[in-house]
Amino acid sequence: MVLASAPAKIILFGEHFVVSDRLAIAAAIDLRAKVEANFNDSKIFSFLSKKNNFKIDVNFDDVVNGRINNYNSFFKPLLFILYEISKCLKLERGIDFIIDSDIPIGVGLGSSAAVSVAFSAATLKLLNYNFGMKDIIIFASKGESLAHERPSGIDPTISTLGGILVYRRSEGFRTLDVSINNPVIIGVTNESRSTAEMVMKVLNFKAKYPKIFDFLYEANDIIVYEAIEALKSNDLLKIGELMNIAHGLLSSIGVSSLSLERLIYAARNAGAYGAKITGAGGGGAMIAVCDSEKIGLVSKVIKDNGGSVISSYISNCGVKIHE
Amino acid sequence: MVLASAPAKIILFGEHFVVSDRLAIAAAIDLRAKVEANFNDSKIFSFLSKKNNFKIDVNFDDVVNGRINNYNSFFKPLLFILYEISKCLKLERGIDFIIDSDIPIGVGLGSSAAVSVAFSAATLKLLNYNFGMKDIIIFASKGESLAHERPSGIDPTISTLGGILVYRRSEGFRTLDVSINNPVIIGVTNESRSTAEMVMKVLNFKAKYPKIFDFLYEANDIIVYEAIEALKSNDLLKIGELMNIAHGLLSSIGVSSLSLERLIYAARNAGAYGAKITGAGGGGAMIAVCDSEKIGLVSKVIKDNGGSVISSYISNCGVKIHE
Repeated sequence: MVLASAPAKIILFGEHFVVSDRLAIAAAIDLRAKVEANFNDSKIFSFLSKKNNFKIDVNFDDVVNGRINNYNSFFKPLLFILYEISKCLKLERGIDFIIDSDIPIGVGLGSSAAVSVAFSAATLKLLNYNFGMKDIIIFASKGESLAHERPSGIDPTISTLGGILVYRRSEGFRTLDVSINNPVIIGVTNESRSTAEMVMKVLNFKAKYPKIFDFLYEANDIIVYEAIEALKSNDLLKIGELMNIAHGLLSSIGVSSLSLERLIYAARNAGAYGAKITGAGGGGAMIAVCDSEKIGLVSKVIKDNGGSVISSYISNCGVKIHE
Repeated sequence: MVLASAPAKIILFGEHFVVSDRLAIAAAIDLRAKVEANFNDSKIFSFLSKKNNFKIDVNFDDVVNGRINNYNSFFKPLLFILYEISKCLKLERGIDFIIDSDIPIGVGLGSSAAVSVAFSAATLKLLNYNFGMKDIIIFASKGESLAHERPSGIDPTISTLGGILVYRRSEGFRTLDVSINNPVIIGVTNESRSTAEMVMKVLNFKAKYPKIFDFLYEANDIIVYEAIEALKSNDLLKIGELMNIAHGLLSSIGVSSLSLERLIYAARNAGAYGAKITGAGGGGAMIAVCDSEKIGLVSKVIKDNGGSVISSYISNCGVKIHE
């Protein structure tokens, strides 16, 4: 038996701007997806999601021959990863997979990437393959390309490596070697939205007002440069202020909502250093950075204003095999 | 007897940015302050505010000799204007002034300037002085310099001239010859705030993050250029979108509040073309532009979300003597 886990992520700065080759900062947090893998004695790959007690059995030959299009389900990205792995490593036996994740789905916390990363690691380890981080990112990204239309690659990378990453599409990733010990409170609204739709909305808006957006995008990059320095010196006041400025930019480009503003102002007024949308916006999640003794109050006011609360910490722990 | 009136103003674009020599657009609206002036037979200047039924009598000689510091009241800017007028024109008789204003006080709609403008016009007319617009602006600005710490001069100018003005501190004013026939709904929160404090807050924030603010300020100017074209072509969709972008910038620089966001999102969600803070922010007023048939709904949702509502139109009518 192999058990692997991988973390959720938050975007600290630069969501949406990153699509247009601007800078972003992503961080892994201590919510994790776990995948257990066991060989079985039948020619079946079985997938069990513990959270919703949903299970499918998939024919061994269908997977290794890439006949997975008919399996239209939650597990399809994992089937695709398994097919890609089967092209590199010889699969001879069926495997039972058990997926167990703490990460809320569809709110921008990288749930699908974390599952894909843990799944890739568990499978490669079970097959006794001496993998590196790069292998995990490559295989997990194959799954992400099914889950999202234009994946930036941020999610599987941060979920594999953990910690904090600075990213620009044309330049790739750079690890930021800092540790932030303060909590990050995540508030989730119950508005539904599609990331792809929000991205298109921003790109259309940008096409209509290119000159204005140019300056907002320039401002984003300076915010990220300043944030890198603030993270290095653990200057939480500055990180919070930069989050507040960044949130205004996200409001400018049209991805905030009243539900998000409610949670954001509640957190700020309760003493958080700063609060902003994280991810695509238009509903979804916001984050607030605060001191440890403020966790209770900031969490309470977010709940009082209609949000679900996840209290998390930035985590240096990326993908992990649990021996 | 002379009756003069002058309009309130809204800032359509550029509040706060204007302090740092950036572009702003102001518009006169159809809320007015009225001042009635009548000679009396005593050596007294009497001031009656009809709205709060507050009255003071001021000794004639005190005013013409500039001994007005002890009159610490709501009417002090008017005493100062009267003193300045007395230096230019011979005052021989007492005058009774009756002030009657529709304009809410202290929410950024230029109430004090409108009173000062109407007061200057009524007084000059009563003294049979053949004044021009410039005279009114000069005398009204004397009063404003008492009412506000660093007046930009926008308020008395727009209240005197009416219509829509484009302004940059280093360049002065330029009239925009357009007429917008759609309503502007004004929502007022019951948060108290000081304009001077909000201005200082922004300037301090700017001093800490000069590079970021530079780009936000550049974005403001492009918004204003685009808005001038949109106003000229009466493109309400574009005016609304630009208001929404501009509001995000005001959120970035820290002058929004949850109460304002509530009114702004309520208006947008009820079908307004756009909505933003107007004036100093941190509480105070927001504006929404909508079609005439939406006045009822937009007004209702602003009320439902805790705002006082003023339904107004942009007005080309500046200061006026009512014969």
